[in-house]
Amino acid sequence: MASNFGTLFRISTWGESHGPGVGVVVDGCPPLIPLTVEDIQHELNRRRPGQSKIVTPRKEDDTAEILSGVLDGQTLGSPIGIFVRNTDQRPSAYTEMQQAYRPSHADYTYDAKYGIRAVSGGGRSSARETIGRVAAGAIGRKVLQHSLSGYEALAYVKTVRHLHAEVPTGAALTAELIESNIVRTCDPVAAEKMIELIEAIRREGNSVGGVIECVVRGVPPGLGEPVFDRLEADLAKAMLSLPATKGFEIGSGFAGTTMTGLEHNDEFYMDGQNVRTRTNRSGGVQGGISNGEEIIFRVAFKPTATVLREQKTVTNTGEDTTLSARGRHDPCVLPRAVPMVEAMVHLVMADHFLRQKALR
Amino acid sequence: MASNFGTLFRISTWGESHGPGVGVVVDGCPPLIPLTVEDIQHELNRRRPGQSKIVTPRKEDDTAEILSGVLDGQTLGSPIGIFVRNTDQRPSAYTEMQQAYRPSHADYTYDAKYGIRAVSGGGRSSARETIGRVAAGAIGRKVLQHSLSGYEALAYVKTVRHLHAEVPTGAALTAELIESNIVRTCDPVAAEKMIELIEAIRREGNSVGGVIECVVRGVPPGLGEPVFDRLEADLAKAMLSLPATKGFEIGSGFAGTTMTGLEHNDEFYMDGQNVRTRTNRSGGVQGGISNGEEIIFRVAFKPTATVLREQKTVTNTGEDTTLSARGRHDPCVLPRAVPMVEAMVHLVMADHFLRQKALR
Amino acid sequence: MASNFGTLFRISTWGESHGPGVGVVVDGCPPLIPLTVEDIQHELNRRRPGQSKIVTPRKEDDTAEILSGVLDGQTLGSPIGIFVRNTDQRPSAYTEMQQAYRPSHADYTYDAKYGIRAVSGGGRSSARETIGRVAAGAIGRKVLQHSLSGYEALAYVKTVRHLHAEVPTGAALTAELIESNIVRTCDPVAAEKMIELIEAIRREGNSVGGVIECVVRGVPPGLGEPVFDRLEADLAKAMLSLPATKGFEIGSGFAGTTMTGLEHNDEFYMDGQNVRTRTNRSGGVQGGISNGEEIIFRVAFKPTATVLREQKTVTNTGEDTTLSARGRHDPCVLPRAVPMVEAMVHLVMADHFLRQKALR
Amino acid sequence: MASNFGTLFRISTWGESHGPGVGVVVDGCPPLIPLTVEDIQHELNRRRPGQSKIVTPRKEDDTAEILSGVLDGQTLGSPIGIFVRNTDQRPSAYTEMQQAYRPSHADYTYDAKYGIRAVSGGGRSSARETIGRVAAGAIGRKVLQHSLSGYEALAYVKTVRHLHAEVPTGAALTAELIESNIVRTCDPVAAEKMIELIEAIRREGNSVGGVIECVVRGVPPGLGEPVFDRLEADLAKAMLSLPATKGFEIGSGFAGTTMTGLEHNDEFYMDGQNVRTRTNRSGGVQGGISNGEEIIFRVAFKPTATVLREQKTVTNTGEDTTLSARGRHDPCVLPRAVPMVEAMVHLVMADHFLRQKALR
Repeated sequence: MASNFGTLFRISTWGESHGPGVGVVVDGCPPLIPLTVEDIQHELNRRRPGQSKIVTPRKEDDTAEILSGVLDGQTLGSPIGIFVRNTDQRPSAYTEMQQAYRPSHADYTYDAKYGIRAVSGGGRSSARETIGRVAAGAIGRKVLQHSLSGYEALAYVKTVRHLHAEVPTGAALTAELIESNIVRTCDPVAAEKMIELIEAIRREGNSVGGVIECVVRGVPPGLGEPVFDRLEADLAKAMLSLPATKGFEIGSGFAGTTMTGLEHNDEFYMDGQNVRTRTNRSGGVQGGISNGEEIIFRVAFKPTATVLREQKTVTNTGEDTTLSARGRHDPCVLPRAVPMVEAMVHLVMADHFLRQKALR
Repeated sequence: MASNFGTLFRISTWGESHGPGVGVVVDGCPPLIPLTVEDIQHELNRRRPGQSKIVTPRKEDDTAEILSGVLDGQTLGSPIGIFVRNTDQRPSAYTEMQQAYRPSHADYTYDAKYGIRAVSGGGRSSARETIGRVAAGAIGRKVLQHSLSGYEALAYVKTVRHLHAEVPTGAALTAELIESNIVRTCDPVAAEKMIELIEAIRREGNSVGGVIECVVRGVPPGLGEPVFDRLEADLAKAMLSLPATKGFEIGSGFAGTTMTGLEHNDEFYMDGQNVRTRTNRSGGVQGGISNGEEIIFRVAFKPTATVLREQKTVTNTGEDTTLSARGRHDPCVLPRAVPMVEAMVHLVMADHFLRQKALR
Repeated sequence: MASNFGTLFRISTWGESHGPGVGVVVDGCPPLIPLTVEDIQHELNRRRPGQSKIVTPRKEDDTAEILSGVLDGQTLGSPIGIFVRNTDQRPSAYTEMQQAYRPSHADYTYDAKYGIRAVSGGGRSSARETIGRVAAGAIGRKVLQHSLSGYEALAYVKTVRHLHAEVPTGAALTAELIESNIVRTCDPVAAEKMIELIEAIRREGNSVGGVIECVVRGVPPGLGEPVFDRLEADLAKAMLSLPATKGFEIGSGFAGTTMTGLEHNDEFYMDGQNVRTRTNRSGGVQGGISNGEEIIFRVAFKPTATVLREQKTVTNTGEDTTLSARGRHDPCVLPRAVPMVEAMVHLVMADHFLRQKALR
Repeated sequence: MASNFGTLFRISTWGESHGPGVGVVVDGCPPLIPLTVEDIQHELNRRRPGQSKIVTPRKEDDTAEILSGVLDGQTLGSPIGIFVRNTDQRPSAYTEMQQAYRPSHADYTYDAKYGIRAVSGGGRSSARETIGRVAAGAIGRKVLQHSLSGYEALAYVKTVRHLHAEVPTGAALTAELIESNIVRTCDPVAAEKMIELIEAIRREGNSVGGVIECVVRGVPPGLGEPVFDRLEADLAKAMLSLPATKGFEIGSGFAGTTMTGLEHNDEFYMDGQNVRTRTNRSGGVQGGISNGEEIIFRVAFKPTATVLREQKTVTNTGEDTTLSARGRHDPCVLPRAVPMVEAMVHLVMADHFLRQKALR
């Protein structure tokens, strides 16, 4: 089950970083949804290494091939297989890692769990694994947009280390704004500073983290299934399943814990025929179910574990040693993580949309 | 699936707040685990209303009955049914709520989702639902302790509004310390101030939230299943499925996003035969898999939505109105949420423990 | 998972034969379905011991209590808990069985699997376990009939040992006809002979088996999910999960293997706007999906393993011995198995009905 | 879920007959299992078209590529992706089928369910879909043989239409015997007659069906999970999920319904330290759990629906018409179905083997 996600809109991802390729099978996608390989490729390009000067310079085309489930631009209702062949493999750059466990990577825990590990490129623990998610997320979005006009998920970098972005409200927050800078933040002024910071950190061989925020619009009231499959619970799992994540909060989040109930509660009012709330500390979810307001949440990404400096560690035979990573790395994962966050949103929402269709 | 949780150690909870009762079925519990009704009752008592002056004064005995799956103090390997009959039902106190949606409660979203709702006592959206989880968690703990010496999960109140507890390190942090005060914090000095705050807030008819932290000890390296069922992902889902939660973070969490990689990485060293880390910013999980260090995470609880003051809202027929809750409420859910957090940890850990047994 | 069944309309059964009771939790039942305890009790009465002279004379009331999920005669969309308290427990009659494994019972295999066993009454391996299924099936039927006019599942005894019933075609086959005799066959003449046979066999302390056939009407085209969750595959699993079953066949079944393709194929024709087949060797399912014709299948039930005669066997400490069962037994399980078969049909159909709603 | 099978050893198959290819992802395979592409290719070759004069003469190489999850001949514990590219595509031969529904095929029901269909080659309803199962089954077998010495599943053709094979008992029944003839029966004399019959039927443009029997050896007592995931229930589902199947029976099966309990019961005896049964009418499973005896079951395969003769049918626009299939077809699916049956056995057994490991 470990590489399966979803109940009705269900995906199975597979693939190691330096094996023949990576991919995904999407089972449970409804038939008659318009879908082209470009829908998928567009998202993969946003996730791709080498796309800008602040991400890893590795050259990987990440070209998607649809192997099944689609005919003449429409889904068939059968499993959709997506395949991305690996092209850029440089096992030589990683030799030292075969013995020494990289600090805060998954090397040691994979050995502890499986007793074997695909060392080259990080194997299954590489962020390359997320290609399957991003491809599947693109399909989930098509399913949602086919039925829900106005559905969209907009993720953006809110902070990089101590740098904060100003977030415009309402219609001013657009996909175009976010894509207008290579950080994928919603504040072009902050973007410049963030780029400078990331470049400086890279020159030091160091890395930084930050926070991605995501706004989901056009979700009707009623999605989410108490008591365990609450919408925020499934979103939390989705986000914490992404590499390098350390936290999730929705609506008022941790800051909301310092408010009183009277301050925190979202009063209802009628907006024509619609029940609305004046504030949105709930983050669009109440009792585990969407209430029709914007869903808004944040995800904490730690600084990339790969740093090009000497660190103390141990070998897989139990001896203390030091390790200096070399080569290419992402000094900050956030720009490339934005499409991953959106993809996971689409997967959660498509699943709950279908589940609600079954229920009523 | 909505009221099911777990893959191998799998629970199904059921029951509305003011119906005949609430309960749980645990499927997949291994046979030959020692289990008595007292093991379960002990945890239910920690969750029970009326246990102290800072929680709701409702009188509910919450007496557990084991209906199946246990014989002569041992599990049979068959489903374990637990039943807690509801005793204290006062539907009259809630009449007004039939028309008016309580702000930041699940009234509106339940209507939007199901088109029907058990109004009295909050029905399925009541925190009474967590009785099943707490009972099942007690069983999960027995399973873990049967195989893992030293396994324990210690949750405690870390903050109430702006009040912070000092957390003792290592062996000084014990279940006895936490149970020594009615807030269930690990700092007896802070406990006094927290109690004062909660009592003052209650007198105002208001409410407060806070943060619960949890330390899990005795988890061997190797639990957690990438890429989706990472240990932190399943913990995040477990926690965000609890009522009133707004956030989850593990290890360094959101604060870790302001560190550099060099500052954040946990260096490895050999401690005799064991691979250890000098710091624990990872929070005991790397690459989604436990590394043998203490697992440490925090959960944000919003202030209780029920406040005894007039609030603006709407009716279920779409008219603006006001609502003043009366009666008994929890001014702060945290003392009673501590055993809920621990229960969800046991459920996640028991499941992953069995999954790892199957794998190797 | 072992006591869970279904994907969207999902049940969890629990309970040992001589424990406090047996029951079921139904998760995923849509809201706003009319449901009363009488709907459930009616089916339990058809399954109940002591209902006629040809079944076991044990006196068990099997009174159902709805514990959750239903309010004022309507489902809430939350889990429906059903509880049947055990009343007639005679552990004394079974003492010998603690040591000796009853031939063709589950005594030995339960010990081999679990290392422990609820000996009294057969524990979880008792057919008493099917109470939960029958109760849940009654709910599944309500869900289906709420949306599908004309939906019904009619099971009947087709053979008892060598005695065959004539099966009337079309509208002549009714629930009333089947309930008109205590065997639950569709042929009143054969019924007399079957009753005589069963009574004679009982007097010998022996037992007989037979075949139940089931016709399902009112199923629209489109239910069933290739490639694994084909409708016939899920029906086969459902039937073979019932105690004492040894075989399943749909449509032409095993007899169809002696026909040629030209003889076997069901030609299509137009019946007004509807695509129909002239013959129904497919049994209402083609390619794993219902085609709108009657679904028709058969289930083989072995003779009851309990016989009141001395048999050779071994003890649980590995010694050869003999065993003579005493007391009450069902000389033929088929009359009471008829509602079990129907219940499992309802569970499979309700699940696939909801799954198809999600898909399109 | 429809193209997913298994709980712990879980597969996802994908692919249409005339699309780019077909394949499978195996999730939950334990690490450190020896596995080469030859293990998989060997079984695909037994399933391949064109392998003998009595199967379809289509030329398809069905060459497997392992895309992930295996390194240096050992499994990694990560998902194993298998890909078989489609090579022989002749869409032209099937043009007529775009309008006319082939009798007893899945054309009509796929349209009814999905509203769209990959017409060419039968799309997802083609038996080509079973390539993924056979590949995954080969992996399941490796998992089982790694832990269970003596494990093997031997399927063979028992009948073709009215022709019956003699089945040798005990050690005389071997894989070599079955592979010694192109029918894959265990009786070389009957094989000759079966070949003659199939060739004659092919010349007529007609088809025949038959029964495959399977013996599974080396299964320890204790596999299978009551009450729903009984071993025979999961086997029944597995078999009825194969194309062209109409029935399943285990042990005494339908014939056992004519015996009395005294005749049918399998008496236990001690064979050294082992509990054994003198007869095996149970078919190796009692109470849903393996008892250590040989598991033996039979599967009914209908005559191939494709016949090269004119048949009455309707078009997808609702008009009566006739259809004459042309081209290549399997006059009898049984020889190629033998490895499919074995593959499904391996999948069921590997899953239950891992589940039992988790339980005790």
